[in-house]
Amino acid sequence: MKLVIAKSAGFCFGVKRAMDIALDASKKYPRDLYTLGPLIHNPQAVEFLERLGVEVKGRIERIPRGTVIFRSHGVSLKDLIKARKKSLRIIDATCPIVKRAQLFAKYLHQHGYSLLIVGDPQHPEVEAIQSYIQEGVDVVENVEAAQGLGPWKKLGIIAQTTQSFNLFKEIVAVCLERAKELRVFNTICHATTIRQMEAVEIAKKVDCMIVIGGYNSGNTQRLAGICRDIQPHTYHIETSQELHPKWLAQRKKIGLTAGASTPSWIIKEVERKVRHLKGLKG
Amino acid sequence: MKLVIAKSAGFCFGVKRAMDIALDASKKYPRDLYTLGPLIHNPQAVEFLERLGVEVKGRIERIPRGTVIFRSHGVSLKDLIKARKKSLRIIDATCPIVKRAQLFAKYLHQHGYSLLIVGDPQHPEVEAIQSYIQEGVDVVENVEAAQGLGPWKKLGIIAQTTQSFNLFKEIVAVCLERAKELRVFNTICHATTIRQMEAVEIAKKVDCMIVIGGYNSGNTQRLAGICRDIQPHTYHIETSQELHPKWLAQRKKIGLTAGASTPSWIIKEVERKVRHLKGLKG
Repeated sequence: MKLVIAKSAGFCFGVKRAMDIALDASKKYPRDLYTLGPLIHNPQAVEFLERLGVEVKGRIERIPRGTVIFRSHGVSLKDLIKARKKSLRIIDATCPIVKRAQLFAKYLHQHGYSLLIVGDPQHPEVEAIQSYIQEGVDVVENVEAAQGLGPWKKLGIIAQTTQSFNLFKEIVAVCLERAKELRVFNTICHATTIRQMEAVEIAKKVDCMIVIGGYNSGNTQRLAGICRDIQPHTYHIETSQELHPKWLAQRKKIGLTAGASTPSWIIKEVERKVRHLKGLKG
Repeated sequence: MKLVIAKSAGFCFGVKRAMDIALDASKKYPRDLYTLGPLIHNPQAVEFLERLGVEVKGRIERIPRGTVIFRSHGVSLKDLIKARKKSLRIIDATCPIVKRAQLFAKYLHQHGYSLLIVGDPQHPEVEAIQSYIQEGVDVVENVEAAQGLGPWKKLGIIAQTTQSFNLFKEIVAVCLERAKELRVFNTICHATTIRQMEAVEIAKKVDCMIVIGGYNSGNTQRLAGICRDIQPHTYHIETSQELHPKWLAQRKKIGLTAGASTPSWIIKEVERKVRHLKGLKG
């Protein structure tokens, strides 16, 4: 029996930064401290912040006063204006890599390009990016959706920062068929690419793959999907409690990875449980 | 027995235009009229022009006086300067679509992009495009060559106008892996794409494919290659004399197409011979 743990599992730079910002804020502003939507897509981490007084509010209208932290995925233009109008104290925990994607989107739009975002149209990061562009934006999350679009004279393409690079590449290739000019900024976060590549390598070698992270975490869902394509015995869990002994019963080599918003304490707990169930030393 | 002839076979707009320009010039300037390299890549058409007094010279140094026609594939910066210095009368028969590719190459270079041309480095069109850029140009004609290049901060990609769109698309996808920003101008001539697509459709339906055009014609070579990938019984010929009766002996459905520089009289001759050999009415 062997357990292979991905080196790239867990908090990325942007998530770590957002958590640090929220922890700092909880010390400075012990009262009336809010995040607009969950700071990161991990219920356990968000619960931990709530115990420190960082309250989650789904809409800016529900924040009466005090301080609002903009989450790692960014904030929409509408919410930014509302927060300013209400004179809330703003602390921006938007991931700098997400911010970069926002800037490229604006740049392409300002320079006369139709804009295509490769990403999940429901994801707050994509919604925020989109909000800064008035019109002429399409969001696609699969090749089929891209095939129905165009033709374009000038098309700009960016990606949600946690997208799969292969999907991004395929969609760029499809769009090239109907674009006279194509301008692509690769806005996929390098850490995401590395995490996905490492997961692929591990999934190839094991007979069971465990992917840890929030069910609401897009990058964790994609990570699980990528692993499942290679190793059908892939399980996406949020915490060690969900880990089912029978999943591991017949398995000889188990792989472990986690999304960008999964805290290390949760990864450690899962690791301990796997070792315990399989009689491995820690 | 059936014979399927591609509607898109033969002279494209740029070649027809170059031939018209050369014919006009032969009336206006009956003496000291030259082309720098063959006007188009078809030995029979070039021979026809020679009989009208349009002489081919491989180097500008060999043109003593009079008029030089720049061929459909364009002229290199060096030759352009030399022709001006020698005070030759210049008639530019460069295909407007090739000229557009040259302009995009210059534009990308001037705006700080490394430049990649998808094309044959030995082809005069590519050599001419390249000559306007001092440095930082790569030319690749297959995916393997592209894989060794980069990384780039800003990469611009254009194609030789007669390239295969699929190859262009594959190389763009490969380059995306190592480019932070990618700017692509699809400079492939629409007529080339249509010709290739029609050839693919015909090759799928026949049991023998004949591709007519100069052996020095890049677009004809590619056309033959595309057909051969689908129908191994594909024959590239320049004239009807090369058509071998045994190629057709066992065949029930024969397809016919021709490159962009193949004159209609040559296509007609081949058609007549096929009909004769297979006992078909004209």
